[in-house]
Amino acid sequence: MKNTFFSCFFILFLVGFVTAQDLKSPNGNLTMKFHLDQNGTPVYTLNFKQKAVIQESKMGFVIKSDILLNSGFQVAETKFQSENSTWKPVLGEQKEIQNQYNELKVDLVQEKSKRKMSIYFRLFNDGLGFRYEFPVQDNLRHFIIQEETTEFNLTGDHKLFWIPGDYDTNEYSYSTSKISEMQSLVYDATHVPLAAQTTIKNLAAQTPLMLKTNEGIYINIHEAALKNFPAMCLNVNDKTYSLSSHLVPDAVGNKGYIQTGSFTPWRTIVVSDDARNILSSKMILNLNEPCAFDDVSWIKPVKYIGVWWEYFTGGGSTWAYSDNQDVVIGKTDFSKLKPNNTHGANTKHVKEYIDFASLNGFDAVLVEGWNEGWEDNTAFKKEHIYSFTKAYPDFNVKELSDYATKKNVKIIMHHETTSSVSEYERQLKDALTFMVDNNYNAVKTGYVGPIIPRGEHHDGQQMVNHYTYVAKEAAKHKIMVDSHEAVRPTGLHRTYPNWFAQESARGTEFESMEGIHPDHTTILPFTRLMGGPMDYTPGIFQGDLSVYGEKKNKLSTTLVKQLALYVTMYSPLQMAADLPENYIKFNDAFQFIKDVALDWDETYILEAEPGDYITIARKTKGKQEWFVGAITDENSRTALIDFSFLPAGKNFTATIYEDGKTADYKTNPQSYNIRKVTVNSKTKLKQKLASSGGAAISIK
Amino acid sequence: MKNTFFSCFFILFLVGFVTAQDLKSPNGNLTMKFHLDQNGTPVYTLNFKQKAVIQESKMGFVIKSDILLNSGFQVAETKFQSENSTWKPVLGEQKEIQNQYNELKVDLVQEKSKRKMSIYFRLFNDGLGFRYEFPVQDNLRHFIIQEETTEFNLTGDHKLFWIPGDYDTNEYSYSTSKISEMQSLVYDATHVPLAAQTTIKNLAAQTPLMLKTNEGIYINIHEAALKNFPAMCLNVNDKTYSLSSHLVPDAVGNKGYIQTGSFTPWRTIVVSDDARNILSSKMILNLNEPCAFDDVSWIKPVKYIGVWWEYFTGGGSTWAYSDNQDVVIGKTDFSKLKPNNTHGANTKHVKEYIDFASLNGFDAVLVEGWNEGWEDNTAFKKEHIYSFTKAYPDFNVKELSDYATKKNVKIIMHHETTSSVSEYERQLKDALTFMVDNNYNAVKTGYVGPIIPRGEHHDGQQMVNHYTYVAKEAAKHKIMVDSHEAVRPTGLHRTYPNWFAQESARGTEFESMEGIHPDHTTILPFTRLMGGPMDYTPGIFQGDLSVYGEKKNKLSTTLVKQLALYVTMYSPLQMAADLPENYIKFNDAFQFIKDVALDWDETYILEAEPGDYITIARKTKGKQEWFVGAITDENSRTALIDFSFLPAGKNFTATIYEDGKTADYKTNPQSYNIRKVTVNSKTKLKQKLASSGGAAISIK
Repeated sequence: MKNTFFSCFFILFLVGFVTAQDLKSPNGNLTMKFHLDQNGTPVYTLNFKQKAVIQESKMGFVIKSDILLNSGFQVAETKFQSENSTWKPVLGEQKEIQNQYNELKVDLVQEKSKRKMSIYFRLFNDGLGFRYEFPVQDNLRHFIIQEETTEFNLTGDHKLFWIPGDYDTNEYSYSTSKISEMQSLVYDATHVPLAAQTTIKNLAAQTPLMLKTNEGIYINIHEAALKNFPAMCLNVNDKTYSLSSHLVPDAVGNKGYIQTGSFTPWRTIVVSDDARNILSSKMILNLNEPCAFDDVSWIKPVKYIGVWWEYFTGGGSTWAYSDNQDVVIGKTDFSKLKPNNTHGANTKHVKEYIDFASLNGFDAVLVEGWNEGWEDNTAFKKEHIYSFTKAYPDFNVKELSDYATKKNVKIIMHHETTSSVSEYERQLKDALTFMVDNNYNAVKTGYVGPIIPRGEHHDGQQMVNHYTYVAKEAAKHKIMVDSHEAVRPTGLHRTYPNWFAQESARGTEFESMEGIHPDHTTILPFTRLMGGPMDYTPGIFQGDLSVYGEKKNKLSTTLVKQLALYVTMYSPLQMAADLPENYIKFNDAFQFIKDVALDWDETYILEAEPGDYITIARKTKGKQEWFVGAITDENSRTALIDFSFLPAGKNFTATIYEDGKTADYKTNPQSYNIRKVTVNSKTKLKQKLASSGGAAISIK
Repeated sequence: MKNTFFSCFFILFLVGFVTAQDLKSPNGNLTMKFHLDQNGTPVYTLNFKQKAVIQESKMGFVIKSDILLNSGFQVAETKFQSENSTWKPVLGEQKEIQNQYNELKVDLVQEKSKRKMSIYFRLFNDGLGFRYEFPVQDNLRHFIIQEETTEFNLTGDHKLFWIPGDYDTNEYSYSTSKISEMQSLVYDATHVPLAAQTTIKNLAAQTPLMLKTNEGIYINIHEAALKNFPAMCLNVNDKTYSLSSHLVPDAVGNKGYIQTGSFTPWRTIVVSDDARNILSSKMILNLNEPCAFDDVSWIKPVKYIGVWWEYFTGGGSTWAYSDNQDVVIGKTDFSKLKPNNTHGANTKHVKEYIDFASLNGFDAVLVEGWNEGWEDNTAFKKEHIYSFTKAYPDFNVKELSDYATKKNVKIIMHHETTSSVSEYERQLKDALTFMVDNNYNAVKTGYVGPIIPRGEHHDGQQMVNHYTYVAKEAAKHKIMVDSHEAVRPTGLHRTYPNWFAQESARGTEFESMEGIHPDHTTILPFTRLMGGPMDYTPGIFQGDLSVYGEKKNKLSTTLVKQLALYVTMYSPLQMAADLPENYIKFNDAFQFIKDVALDWDETYILEAEPGDYITIARKTKGKQEWFVGAITDENSRTALIDFSFLPAGKNFTATIYEDGKTADYKTNPQSYNIRKVTVNSKTKLKQKLASSGGAAISIK
């Protein structure tokens, strides 16, 4: 994490002298203009190659009660600064990241109240980040945000890839539509079964929000470094094409408690006329603070299997040990309960998973349903749902820990909180100590259902602080965290690299429930993944759930597309989610999952169009080894894979996992073919992808 | 804690056979009648010596959403049972407590829904306790209480000793009025400055509520064993003289999350025609569960002084170390701040207190303001207000711990949370470990201001669970807890005897603020203290605060009444709250505070009338030593002290601390006289008490 730092201060203005300021990106493609309007309201615009991307957009806050911190300002001082440095992420898509931007800092003061606020604009080649600072000042120490009034005024009726604005979930299916079409789609989009759902009443969307203009400009709006602040949703005005910030409120309707001497998260706008540049942007990471830990040697990528998918298949395996739903943690003696004999997380069965993991080179086995409480786990109804230190009678912690160690496999801890967060925090330190004592080094946390403290939301300030608290406490115990149903990520894995993956989107589990659209994984990298790695849990080979029982679900992809996802969806934590029996059955295809890397020297976005297709190549960290993934939506296509990322003048053997000739995600998803070809840096491969199909290539 | 247990089952009825059931107290004075009315609503009445105390009063709940769990019932079964046993409290007013009652259990079932509920009535000689059980049943596992509909229908326009119904505070001044007069007084009663205040909008009062009928019947309504349930306030209908339960809601307006297989707290009605029997009632303790700990050897009474009153006198001492209010815990380096030189909790000053404590036989010194964060401690505005493990730069934890140990004195830890409860729970385990490491064995917790999690109330279910959680966690570390601004106690100190005192009422600190009424301490034992010991912090000798600076406050009592409070206000934790300099100045009076015991073999309520006077004698635990306290309200009076509690046939020397002849709390509060007299079991002493005066007697 070497930091090469070049910076210079070059202009300084004084109060009243400034009416407008321009800022250009290092390559000159982007221009940000700032001024105060006649009301003293901060206003910015953003142009890309001389074309407006964001029209005049107001900035600021309304604070309690009805005090305007968005007008009546004068500019006290402006300051320009530049940076061009590189840094190395602990885990990542590339071994080194360039952090190059020009910065304008504007210090504002309200004429009458003397309240001060500053705005930092950082213009990178790939986009704009800006944040507010509330400096320490005489007349303002604490305030409550009533609303942030930041606008993102668009230039037209762009195409949007959106999920509804919601305080509690990001697990919606994506809709693709014009802004003007949202209203007609939002009823269906929001009336879906989700465990916790607080849809914003007006027309709104979650970030990261992906847009495309008629002129082919790609725009991504999100935020970076979300700490001690509520997450930002976006109000959508479908007449004026104006977006504006909508912060997640707390239990009493307030939208952030601020002490001066602090910053907001960065608001981010990534812009390009090439969709591939959106995916390769590292701006959000650059806007986050450097790694907060001195020792990161214990943070490692993890490829895992788990006692998990069998709970979703309809095959009868259960999280709960018994069928007695009248259990009370701390009172019920679980050893006295009648076992239901369908409990998945039993010692014998977990050993089978450990054996399979060991045999196939996996790092770890996730075990869900190991702990007391699953019999009665409906959210919101009681505080004390689970023990995080007491295993079910048939899960022998010590025996399994020893067995896993002997087999060189880790068990991944599971802390489903069912959103009883107060109680989870009570148990957290004991739970982490329990993990250390029993040789666990990673935990999957879960936040299903509405939050306790009641009235709080998954994405509000208090919960944002909770997730960070858990990541930091876990780090003290050298434990990595994979949080599910938490607030969408904003690049904090740079600062807390042990918080190495999240769900926070519709993941593979929905293949067993209400389903996933074939274009879903062509959108996710442009939306949810802009903030950080996703534990999407791909790798389902047996997509027809009717083989297990009553369920009728069919997978939304071909088998090969499942393989390609390991490359197209970056994460240092990757699951092979299907049952071992299916990997044994399709052992040759399974080889790709066994081979694929999790940490990379370089990443090459070869083809990309949100909602349609993505082709990505990556070079394994520290190895002369590459992997390529190509996926498409419901439409079959031919991917053009340009191997110019390979070192010149050398031939390599590529193993291509491709959809079979008659493959189709609906009618023939398990048809695939594996072939070996010789490739070099001049190879341009036309690779056929079936409808919702893919291709996966390993090169050694 | 030996339990001598006699019980017998003697009657059993079946469904439909029962229309009414009578229950008598063991001595026959009280009769409780239960029946279902024509709507299947449970109804009870309570008579004392053949006169109605509680008229027909309905029972039950409305659960979410609008489901009636208070009508449509049939009686499925009734069961009678009796108990007569004794048990020994760890600390208490008497060494042995008799637990004698007759019990009726009524199992109810709703005809249509088949929902079940049971009611337990326990009739003691001193009153009635009843609670609801929600048994495990097929069709009901979890529900949310919308409201409890328990009534306490009174027989007339009784005199009330009341504070306003409130979700967040019990620190009001008491009003004494007829029920019909409440409405005209409630505006003034509620429009007072309190740190956290959520007054109930309709006419309502807090429990313990003390009443007196025109016929001279005393009635006290409260609750016992408040666990995992919101506290109960009482709606007051000033036309029908009906009281009804009003539970404290959570942040979203719900009034309790119930899992079947559980009980509500007991609703308690203590009744007598002699006010003294109200004070001697141990019914609330009897209705609590026995001690939850095996080892209680570490739970001891504590007499203490503290770096505390100097913060209230106006003399300039401050909790904060510096005047920089822009501090941030975890970021600010407090050692770099400019000290304000008024910080009370500095090493040198604390050593002076330790010296004084050691010299005068005190067990402990409370030190407030020892830890980082007091500069910026306004409630509700930020989560992370204090560190509970980092001392200010001028408070040397190790040095003071060693010094105190050498002097055989304990330092009492102070955890002011300023109601940022989420953050306190995060730090709690570390804070308790820090205490153990540094030789602390007791903590004063504080909950000033509105609660975080925001929207929750001090007396709601989640906070009720918080206080119990803290008490239990502290017990794991052998730490005693004295909670301030917590929910009013309900006898849980029987179950968790380390939670040995609470404030939860208007205490001595108000003598330095808005004041205390002269009758306040003649009411508290009939109200707040019915639930448990109070850390009232008496012992103010210098009641004229103008001697310190700008403040004009004058104490509401004579000096001698301050002494008497150590006997009249039971607590195993007693502070000598004034500055050492004042004890040095009035060293002979101070002798009583040094002598008075904290734990008792027997207690004798000699005289009592709520709002007017109280005279109590107590025998020191394990010693032939007695202390008597007598207090009066603003009216001077002559206490008649009957020494028949002394062993017959022996003379004892009594040291009497009495108001001087011209003593008067307003004009001459520090006038006192100390005399020695010989007393025996036949002595009847007429002792003059000044206006808001008292008498304190020690007998050896």
